[in-house]
Amino acid sequence: MARPKSRRLVPKAVNPLHQIRVMGRLVRRAVKKPGTAPGTLVHSGEKKVERTLIRYIDYDADELHEAEVPDVSACLSMKDSPTVSWVDVDGLHDVELVQRLGEHFGWHPLMLEDIVSVGQRAKLEEYDGALYIVVPMLRWNADTLQADEEQLSLILGDRYVFTFQERVGDVFDGVRERLRTSRGRIRARGPDYLTYALIDAVVDNYFVVLEGIGELTEGLEEEVIVDPREHTIQRLHALKRELLSIRRAVWPLRDLVSSLVRDELERFTDETQVFLRDVRDHAVHVLDTVEALRDVVSGMMDLYLSTVSFRTNEIMKVLTVMASIFIPLTFLAGVYGMNFEHMPELHWPWAYPALLALMLVIGGGMVLYFRRKGWL
Amino acid sequence: MARPKSRRLVPKAVNPLHQIRVMGRLVRRAVKKPGTAPGTLVHSGEKKVERTLIRYIDYDADELHEAEVPDVSACLSMKDSPTVSWVDVDGLHDVELVQRLGEHFGWHPLMLEDIVSVGQRAKLEEYDGALYIVVPMLRWNADTLQADEEQLSLILGDRYVFTFQERVGDVFDGVRERLRTSRGRIRARGPDYLTYALIDAVVDNYFVVLEGIGELTEGLEEEVIVDPREHTIQRLHALKRELLSIRRAVWPLRDLVSSLVRDELERFTDETQVFLRDVRDHAVHVLDTVEALRDVVSGMMDLYLSTVSFRTNEIMKVLTVMASIFIPLTFLAGVYGMNFEHMPELHWPWAYPALLALMLVIGGGMVLYFRRKGWL
Amino acid sequence: MARPKSRRLVPKAVNPLHQIRVMGRLVRRAVKKPGTAPGTLVHSGEKKVERTLIRYIDYDADELHEAEVPDVSACLSMKDSPTVSWVDVDGLHDVELVQRLGEHFGWHPLMLEDIVSVGQRAKLEEYDGALYIVVPMLRWNADTLQADEEQLSLILGDRYVFTFQERVGDVFDGVRERLRTSRGRIRARGPDYLTYALIDAVVDNYFVVLEGIGELTEGLEEEVIVDPREHTIQRLHALKRELLSIRRAVWPLRDLVSSLVRDELERFTDETQVFLRDVRDHAVHVLDTVEALRDVVSGMMDLYLSTVSFRTNEIMKVLTVMASIFIPLTFLAGVYGMNFEHMPELHWPWAYPALLALMLVIGGGMVLYFRRKGWL
Amino acid sequence: MARPKSRRLVPKAVNPLHQIRVMGRLVRRAVKKPGTAPGTLVHSGEKKVERTLIRYIDYDADELHEAEVPDVSACLSMKDSPTVSWVDVDGLHDVELVQRLGEHFGWHPLMLEDIVSVGQRAKLEEYDGALYIVVPMLRWNADTLQADEEQLSLILGDRYVFTFQERVGDVFDGVRERLRTSRGRIRARGPDYLTYALIDAVVDNYFVVLEGIGELTEGLEEEVIVDPREHTIQRLHALKRELLSIRRAVWPLRDLVSSLVRDELERFTDETQVFLRDVRDHAVHVLDTVEALRDVVSGMMDLYLSTVSFRTNEIMKVLTVMASIFIPLTFLAGVYGMNFEHMPELHWPWAYPALLALMLVIGGGMVLYFRRKGWL
Amino acid sequence: MARPKSRRLVPKAVNPLHQIRVMGRLVRRAVKKPGTAPGTLVHSGEKKVERTLIRYIDYDADELHEAEVPDVSACLSMKDSPTVSWVDVDGLHDVELVQRLGEHFGWHPLMLEDIVSVGQRAKLEEYDGALYIVVPMLRWNADTLQADEEQLSLILGDRYVFTFQERVGDVFDGVRERLRTSRGRIRARGPDYLTYALIDAVVDNYFVVLEGIGELTEGLEEEVIVDPREHTIQRLHALKRELLSIRRAVWPLRDLVSSLVRDELERFTDETQVFLRDVRDHAVHVLDTVEALRDVVSGMMDLYLSTVSFRTNEIMKVLTVMASIFIPLTFLAGVYGMNFEHMPELHWPWAYPALLALMLVIGGGMVLYFRRKGWL
Repeated sequence: MARPKSRRLVPKAVNPLHQIRVMGRLVRRAVKKPGTAPGTLVHSGEKKVERTLIRYIDYDADELHEAEVPDVSACLSMKDSPTVSWVDVDGLHDVELVQRLGEHFGWHPLMLEDIVSVGQRAKLEEYDGALYIVVPMLRWNADTLQADEEQLSLILGDRYVFTFQERVGDVFDGVRERLRTSRGRIRARGPDYLTYALIDAVVDNYFVVLEGIGELTEGLEEEVIVDPREHTIQRLHALKRELLSIRRAVWPLRDLVSSLVRDELERFTDETQVFLRDVRDHAVHVLDTVEALRDVVSGMMDLYLSTVSFRTNEIMKVLTVMASIFIPLTFLAGVYGMNFEHMPELHWPWAYPALLALMLVIGGGMVLYFRRKGWL
Repeated sequence: MARPKSRRLVPKAVNPLHQIRVMGRLVRRAVKKPGTAPGTLVHSGEKKVERTLIRYIDYDADELHEAEVPDVSACLSMKDSPTVSWVDVDGLHDVELVQRLGEHFGWHPLMLEDIVSVGQRAKLEEYDGALYIVVPMLRWNADTLQADEEQLSLILGDRYVFTFQERVGDVFDGVRERLRTSRGRIRARGPDYLTYALIDAVVDNYFVVLEGIGELTEGLEEEVIVDPREHTIQRLHALKRELLSIRRAVWPLRDLVSSLVRDELERFTDETQVFLRDVRDHAVHVLDTVEALRDVVSGMMDLYLSTVSFRTNEIMKVLTVMASIFIPLTFLAGVYGMNFEHMPELHWPWAYPALLALMLVIGGGMVLYFRRKGWL
Repeated sequence: MARPKSRRLVPKAVNPLHQIRVMGRLVRRAVKKPGTAPGTLVHSGEKKVERTLIRYIDYDADELHEAEVPDVSACLSMKDSPTVSWVDVDGLHDVELVQRLGEHFGWHPLMLEDIVSVGQRAKLEEYDGALYIVVPMLRWNADTLQADEEQLSLILGDRYVFTFQERVGDVFDGVRERLRTSRGRIRARGPDYLTYALIDAVVDNYFVVLEGIGELTEGLEEEVIVDPREHTIQRLHALKRELLSIRRAVWPLRDLVSSLVRDELERFTDETQVFLRDVRDHAVHVLDTVEALRDVVSGMMDLYLSTVSFRTNEIMKVLTVMASIFIPLTFLAGVYGMNFEHMPELHWPWAYPALLALMLVIGGGMVLYFRRKGWL
Repeated sequence: MARPKSRRLVPKAVNPLHQIRVMGRLVRRAVKKPGTAPGTLVHSGEKKVERTLIRYIDYDADELHEAEVPDVSACLSMKDSPTVSWVDVDGLHDVELVQRLGEHFGWHPLMLEDIVSVGQRAKLEEYDGALYIVVPMLRWNADTLQADEEQLSLILGDRYVFTFQERVGDVFDGVRERLRTSRGRIRARGPDYLTYALIDAVVDNYFVVLEGIGELTEGLEEEVIVDPREHTIQRLHALKRELLSIRRAVWPLRDLVSSLVRDELERFTDETQVFLRDVRDHAVHVLDTVEALRDVVSGMMDLYLSTVSFRTNEIMKVLTVMASIFIPLTFLAGVYGMNFEHMPELHWPWAYPALLALMLVIGGGMVLYFRRKGWL
Repeated sequence: MARPKSRRLVPKAVNPLHQIRVMGRLVRRAVKKPGTAPGTLVHSGEKKVERTLIRYIDYDADELHEAEVPDVSACLSMKDSPTVSWVDVDGLHDVELVQRLGEHFGWHPLMLEDIVSVGQRAKLEEYDGALYIVVPMLRWNADTLQADEEQLSLILGDRYVFTFQERVGDVFDGVRERLRTSRGRIRARGPDYLTYALIDAVVDNYFVVLEGIGELTEGLEEEVIVDPREHTIQRLHALKRELLSIRRAVWPLRDLVSSLVRDELERFTDETQVFLRDVRDHAVHVLDTVEALRDVVSGMMDLYLSTVSFRTNEIMKVLTVMASIFIPLTFLAGVYGMNFEHMPELHWPWAYPALLALMLVIGGGMVLYFRRKGWL
């Protein structure tokens, strides 16, 4: 088979074993001792930022204040302000800060525990006074060709939205920009619409991740077809695990958004509900795409195995044909290489050409036989 | 095995790798930046037509006007006309046009966004004043042996139906003909019946696609049985992906039609409901056929692998039989080809014929042994 | 392994490729152009009878009239007769006949379309004035070892039952006999009980088909275990497809019968409901058996592949043992067959027996080694 | 690999082909012609007893009468007696007996038909005057290492319980003993509690069967790991089929018991309901165990195939290493065994030892190369 | 391929066969004879402790008494005490003790039977006067690299909680510590909160087990990629069985906790319900992780098989290349090693170098051919 130049093969540098190692553990290390009291705040992730960063945006239809504050105390007054406030906390290792906010705003201890326990599934919990939402954020890392996962906690109160992230840098720049510039829709609406906008941005970003995964898959598909190697199947396995972990993130997210739509939570106006339905459709689409990718990758594993089996078969044919033709001939040559004193044939003058002719006939017959069997 | 002439093998010209490349990306490239405001109109597909084409048919039981208009303004008056109007817009790259229509008819921004964002799943959304339906249209491309997908958006208002397609040319010629000629049923009924007729035409066309896929499958089935090659498994894989993408299109379509039937949308009269039930049955039939084809293709992959394994086994038998018979004989010949001074056998007069006889016995014994094992 | 005489192997004459070809197309050819008006009557099957045959049985508890009529007009009077009438129409290519009946009895156009569009899924549709039921009939063809499928349409009116079949000859002879002879239950009850009796006969006949399939499966099972060949896996594949198409017929049939039981259709008396529950149990049993057969056939494919792999392994062992023993010995013989002038060993008197002894030791050592590895 | 002594291997005497044959047909032979009137009594099983055996136990809290009667007439009086009566009929071929009982007690014809049609799924049917329950009984046969299936029909009337079995001998000895000895709970309660006790005994016996199957599975697991043979995979297949048929028996049984618990059948007192919940839990446990066993057996098939593939790989390594080392050396020996007149090397005095050295180097190099590849 | 040093391979000492044997039987041996009266107490496990240990903690917000009592009589007074009592019974072989407690506290006989019948699925049963909960506890055994399962029975009465375990030592030390030290939440609340705290501790401990399983899986994943052996697939199989048995434990546990949340059991205050929801989320997370691990392990089996197939393919290439190059050359050498008198070539002076050149050309041609095929 002529080998077409590969179009978009996976970069060779990515070692699948390394890739799997980097992908992180299948099971997150438990941090709390079993039996610990609920509400005990233990940060379960790695410390990803040096200092916790607190940014707030306070706005109504007419005005907007934005600031980066060194300390949580600046936010405490927002509890009762009539404007909408969005406080974004980046970095979760400072459990005292979370504790202090929780006490001031009257959040449930389990909620505080969940904020700092990263690695959770998407969930929606309604407590008195606040709606608590956990959403896993994915970001495509073009270097490792993997999706980085980060936990976003979102608290929707009467006039405020708090977001807690593991590190600085997020997918919300578009939302911030809309808040700053367009005085229109987003500024005129309440914190429920802001919540929608944030979740929407998270879900939209899943498509970016899927795009990366999709390209990786197509590259591997070409590799399987053109030149399957031992690394290929390992990369397929790594890709399958990656898809599995994305699916584990998206599945509960879809349920969460669906229950936001279904439930008559009074926190969301009818107008926002229409937009939430749109997010739900996107989440369903993401999940559907992930499932399709899983199907394709499974098919690629079958393709790989079948291709390798077929090639083994081809190789065996060559070996069998070569061996079957020459082994009998070599035997014949061996016979007349024996040193018996009494071998009358050796003295016949036409014996040698006759034997050569016989060998030709045998070899030719073999070739014909294998050609009829389709092995040649 | 005698090889029967193949009945309807897949044309050899179709290169599976090319086929997969053409099939389009697994994941559509995201166009909008995450965090963009909802209702932002960005056309997500390729520009498939030079100029947007607008055709309208305006009719009641007695009269019918049909025109191709250069500009959207001609359609604006239809909003309040008592006749039924069907406006068909082919080409989606002109987002201003969509925007202008939307403002005039009072459509929701999310609806406008969805019209130009192609590659969506089938969906049904009820907004104030209009029902919005997205349906993926499939058309069988006899050259590439693949189904081309196109997004159809359908808006059902009080007295009008709008359809938005990605390119000129569709599956609605039958409906247009019925509108023009038969003054009977379709002309006497409202826009809800027209909506039914359009969706029905889309679903009917799925059967044409399935027919093409079915023939392809049968051709490949024969190829797998008669002469499995490396290309065969790649074509099977391409077929599997094709079926997967059709299934992704049909599954939500079935749900959509089912919810049209189930929901008591007041837009559909009881009479039209009967016909919608018929469409639902067709959609279920399509899905059922797709699933059956997937099952058959999966079975063909197993068949391929088992056939290849079996053939490897057959090849190994030949090699083993040949080698097992001649290797010991060659060894014997080698022994008496040695040049030791003191090899008494060499001088015995009957040694040569005796050795030949021994070789015959050994070879014959091997043949008998392998015949008893069923390898010959 | 001793090969037991096969008990009930599949007849060798059945060529799997032929079998698959005969099985009919995976996807039935679409006849109507997409976009055709609903209610357009186009017969979608092959013309299976020369002339449409119309038979009617008109009965009440006391009397029974039975006739074969040349023409539909004889049936038209049955619409309002107080007796129960069963009209059986065999042959669907005469769409005018169906059209004329439809107009007389006031049947819905979609119903008429469905009667002549064969290849549909089982369905139940309630229209004003009549209940319309489609049931796929299966009959076991002992020659092709396949199930022939035929579409039965059944229309249950107030005092009549119409049945439409594709060809003459059916599974209703038992029902006719009961009507003729036993004046008891079936004659004393209404058309709803007759409907039950007909569906019951169809479902009972599924068991006959399954019996045939079951024997085929057992024969193939034995073939896989005793003597797997290339044809075996193809037959397994054909069997799998056969089961798939039976399953596609039975699955909606079960739903149909279940909804007959569940729905409070007033057409069925409480007494008949009890009997319908019995049919439902039979349908469930059929489906359950089909699923079990599919499971068994899947298992047989695994069995086949594993058996072939195991045998390849056994063959490889023989080859490896033979080659590993004789290749080194042949090499040794080759060394002493060289013609160097200065090979002192050649002149030693005990060199030849010593070499033979060495060869024996090497060969014996190999045999021991392979025996310890369990390869001998 | 050292082979540990097998702990509990499957007895070698069980021939898997025989085992599958004995297991009975996949699909029970249909006895009734399709179209036969419902309520026609045809015994569908083999005649398993010479004479039908009728035993009855008549009891209340104070007294108990037990008898084996030759004839059904002794039981007829029980219809209206105030005591609880349990009549156990062993043997189903005597359809007149069943008919006579049915007429006397007013049982529905379908019920009578079901009693003699063995091979049915578990079902629960409420008729006027009696509750009819079909339960498949399984008994572990330690000789054939299989479960024997038998159909138990149970009729619960106001003051009586009838049980119909295919043959003499059952799992109810414990219940009989409790009736005879303990005057306590079981005697003080009504026929509903007796019904519970009988079903409970049936379900408890499933655990005995599963225990047998479990041991068989563990034995096979060891065989697959220690010494996989061709018989092993056939035994696995037989085991899989066995599990499949047990699952087909248990699945509807679980549904039956669940609906006994869920439905508010007035025949069961609240007190008995508590016990029925316990039976339901047991049925769920049985099903859960069957599914787990199926999972394990599936895993064993993968294990088998992978193990065989791995061993083929190992065998190939040995062959390849042997052949690759000696084939070039033999060639070299062959070259210097040629009889050309003009081969200067033959006359060089150090040619022979030099060639031997070269051969050593080549052979050693090969060994090193294969060792680095990990093939040695 | 360079073999990187393995990071965390499974310790070699663990023999997979031994591991599977230790894992315990697939089906627990039935202890009770079928037909035994319900409520008969038979301990179905092994006797794991010498003497039953009874510990109680009696507390309210102000005071706490803790004691280890030799005898059950000390606990009997707790029935009506106003304080909350937690009695922990370790060891189940002493059925008289359980019987005596049951009679004193008025527990249902089925409840007592379940306490001593270990190996049950998680279940929740509400009886008059007490809620009965069965939960399987898992503990990670770092020596055998397996999870040990133990049955926990929990009885929640009005003012008391009883726990029954199979052996001494549990996961409740954290809860005991919180009871002893923190006078706060847990002491101030009722037995429902204590029940929550105990179940929470059990579920938290599942994460510890999963962590162990996860590490094992990662180690095996590396082994499959770097150096797949026969043991590897056996270990994978053992791991799969381990995961299967964990899944069988967790699945009903999740249902149990869900029904605790869903049901409006009056035993749980609204405040405790919030915490139970948290436990439910954890149980869902555990199950989700188990399913993901199962997926990964399945993928590893495919990976193993594909890797082995690929390596066989590579080995075959080497063999085929070596054999195909040298077999024809050896044949040629054999020809000129024949001893015919009349072989003119033997006397040509340039015959020997010409033949060597020819051999070089043939060999080189082969090498080029195989290189073009990509086999070299």
